[in-house]
Amino acid sequence: MLTYSFANTGSEPLYLHLYKCIKNDILDGVLLSGTKLPSKRSFAKNLGISNITVENAYAQLQAEGFIYSIPKKGFYITGLPENMPVNRREHINHEAGWIEAGSIMEEESQCKIDLVSNMTPPANFPFSIWAKLMREIISEKSSELMKKSPWGGIMELRSAISMHLKQFRNMDIAPEQIITGAGTEYLYTLIIQLLGYDKVYAVENPGYKKVAQIYKSNNVACEYIPVGSSGIVIEELEKRNADVAHISPSHHYPTGIITPVSRRYEILAWASRKKGRYIIEDDYDSEFRLEGKPVPTLQGIDIMESVIYINTFTKSLAPTIRISYMVLPWKLLKEFHAKLSFYSCTVSNFEQYTLARFINNGYFEKHINRMRNYYRNVRDSLMDEIKKSRLSDICEISEEGSGLHFLLKIHTEIPDNEYVETCRQNNINVSCLSQYYMEDNTQAGAGMDSCNNRQHIIIMNYSGIRMEDVEETVSLLCKSSGITD
Amino acid sequence: MLTYSFANTGSEPLYLHLYKCIKNDILDGVLLSGTKLPSKRSFAKNLGISNITVENAYAQLQAEGFIYSIPKKGFYITGLPENMPVNRREHINHEAGWIEAGSIMEEESQCKIDLVSNMTPPANFPFSIWAKLMREIISEKSSELMKKSPWGGIMELRSAISMHLKQFRNMDIAPEQIITGAGTEYLYTLIIQLLGYDKVYAVENPGYKKVAQIYKSNNVACEYIPVGSSGIVIEELEKRNADVAHISPSHHYPTGIITPVSRRYEILAWASRKKGRYIIEDDYDSEFRLEGKPVPTLQGIDIMESVIYINTFTKSLAPTIRISYMVLPWKLLKEFHAKLSFYSCTVSNFEQYTLARFINNGYFEKHINRMRNYYRNVRDSLMDEIKKSRLSDICEISEEGSGLHFLLKIHTEIPDNEYVETCRQNNINVSCLSQYYMEDNTQAGAGMDSCNNRQHIIIMNYSGIRMEDVEETVSLLCKSSGITD
Repeated sequence: MLTYSFANTGSEPLYLHLYKCIKNDILDGVLLSGTKLPSKRSFAKNLGISNITVENAYAQLQAEGFIYSIPKKGFYITGLPENMPVNRREHINHEAGWIEAGSIMEEESQCKIDLVSNMTPPANFPFSIWAKLMREIISEKSSELMKKSPWGGIMELRSAISMHLKQFRNMDIAPEQIITGAGTEYLYTLIIQLLGYDKVYAVENPGYKKVAQIYKSNNVACEYIPVGSSGIVIEELEKRNADVAHISPSHHYPTGIITPVSRRYEILAWASRKKGRYIIEDDYDSEFRLEGKPVPTLQGIDIMESVIYINTFTKSLAPTIRISYMVLPWKLLKEFHAKLSFYSCTVSNFEQYTLARFINNGYFEKHINRMRNYYRNVRDSLMDEIKKSRLSDICEISEEGSGLHFLLKIHTEIPDNEYVETCRQNNINVSCLSQYYMEDNTQAGAGMDSCNNRQHIIIMNYSGIRMEDVEETVSLLCKSSGITD
Repeated sequence: MLTYSFANTGSEPLYLHLYKCIKNDILDGVLLSGTKLPSKRSFAKNLGISNITVENAYAQLQAEGFIYSIPKKGFYITGLPENMPVNRREHINHEAGWIEAGSIMEEESQCKIDLVSNMTPPANFPFSIWAKLMREIISEKSSELMKKSPWGGIMELRSAISMHLKQFRNMDIAPEQIITGAGTEYLYTLIIQLLGYDKVYAVENPGYKKVAQIYKSNNVACEYIPVGSSGIVIEELEKRNADVAHISPSHHYPTGIITPVSRRYEILAWASRKKGRYIIEDDYDSEFRLEGKPVPTLQGIDIMESVIYINTFTKSLAPTIRISYMVLPWKLLKEFHAKLSFYSCTVSNFEQYTLARFINNGYFEKHINRMRNYYRNVRDSLMDEIKKSRLSDICEISEEGSGLHFLLKIHTEIPDNEYVETCRQNNINVSCLSQYYMEDNTQAGAGMDSCNNRQHIIIMNYSGIRMEDVEETVSLLCKSSGITD
């Protein structure tokens, strides 16, 4: 009969020791497929251990499939195929070289000044209020926190967002129309599932490359539509057989163009001309119009139910709290409910409730007002500093009215890629308008300007710039532009 | 010249009032396209207001595209298309009937006892520790909290998960291989983008319907593969040209089957036979094996880099904190990095850091142990209560060893759908094994049992049952089975 030593088991349970011994013998080919194991009782007696220890060891081996039982006969070894696992640690060590080589590391800006990333300077986030509300929510809502969120999100948050949209955008939205999700990127993928994989999705050129990347990655046709001085060019939408136009009419990134009302109606008219056409209105930084009243949304003047409005708390609160939302027209909402409501909401209940209270108690409005002042000051200081500097001799500022960036056209001969690289070496991370144009350049002249006019325009995204960085920012730009004092 | 009254403006700024007056006249067709507006100075004089007020009103109208300026000539009304917005509130009121009718409401169980949903009873969630850690994180890590998470998640969390996987599953995983996301459902959609839309994805039958729904919703081919008594049937994988097998070998839901090691090697062998074949190993409740040591993962014995391991904190912590993760083999990780690392991480930094500390400080292990004891007690009480009841005369219990459910076969003539409905009327929400079979029934006999044997098996998912509910649960089951004391 099989015999194993129980001499050096240490603190290991006996059943576990026995289990390992048998398992090793199976893996080593000592115990072959079909071999009958001793009965529990006789095995226990032989080894001087209790029946229950053998039973537990057999149970574990059986659960893992190393042995099987035939009722009233006993336990047998299962057959195993040839190929056996090798030492995996070696493999990991081998691959670790690749990691260390940095090829998979984050390509994040290591520059001191960053005019590219959307960041909230830590001093601007209302940590103490957020912590207080989170604490309140945890102590008051333990049972709601453990209850599955409805697919569109917690009603309290959706109501709060609906109120916010009424106040800030004068939109009449029922909370039920709002669907929350962990980031707009995730919501785009839901929209594709909703509208269909056979549709042609049109994105703005220039524009956020990520939007096009998402459509391509989701295996749908994606067309680049030029943006003229009044927004997206409608004839191009027609020409390229677009079904869905993904646009940011209230503040186009990176040009800053605000699509005028007339063009907005034309876009709606485009959508209404054919069944199945939709507009995705990306309103990502509408809270930060720094001058005048916000422009009305497309959603607000759409009577054909063809606009999906989408917005996020990335800019208005923090990009690291992943809460975005979309507003569906009723017709699409019904479809979404039928087709996609099986998806669980991707936002944590804890943060949904905290954000709802943050909005409902008026903290969000205060925060936005504070941030608007803050950003206005940063922008003004930045523009003042530029005007005071020798950079002003060779540059022009435009599109400074809204959003958290403006354009800085520099009269220089340095090509954009070189300029960006020089900046990086000078510890400042910048991007240029030309980088936001997508490869498709067939429609020369249809865009806002010719290729040449795209050059030497820096996108001054100041959302991550602190007041104390302003001077250095301009000084580094001077340096990078070859200006020395 | 245009004249407007400034009599009843109340607290409204004058520029805003003027802006509204002009805008309304444009929208009402009083001011037609091409009409020249008065010069700022003369208009201001005429209305008895300051120049700057007129300037602000014009600026706003211009920003919204209602008017345009011709340098050195003046401001003109923009032309608007015919179709004008109607009163939207009416429309919302009209649709509200549909909402009130409840057609879009959540289809959630209103039953007192719920044997279907995966819930964490609020008393089981470590609220005070979670709140404490969240508070610590907020006060210590303000700058990290505002810094964009790497695409795969915060390294601290990924390291913590890697350590957890070593301890609980004996898996040797580098933190870099781990990618976090807001729920496994979201991760599945990333996997599709990674592996391709031209692949055939195979899911288990019976199994979670949601998994198949996700594949179908993402527009990829999805095949139902029967599950035999040792797990998924390999010949069927071959027969249906599956490229990717999505399986839960460690604890199949709902049958509870644990795929034995021999079958695991066969599945790996299947994957290795053809390039581009992959296995998605869904290990969703491995922490709650209530007896013996956990079975080794497929990932742990895979040397061909063909297994994507996926797990979640839904069961082990709470379903309402949306944190899941997948482990990619190095080859796929490189591909993911090249193709999909542009996606932002979908989990909030606040919760990533909190969970990392929760794991690192040993709270997670304690929590799991506590929960394992808790669930073992609930399960034992439930089984005892069943054995004590008259239900025991007509039922058999099986697959009670792991996970948070067992099967209860009831000898009854009542069809499953009727039984479920009767239960619901008796205030208890149950599901039956037969409900987890997908329509595709071509392969009769290939499955674990014939259609007949699938009937009358209740899935006793006790994850949301509290000790004090046990008696009532069994009593309601008796009642629903037509047993009266």
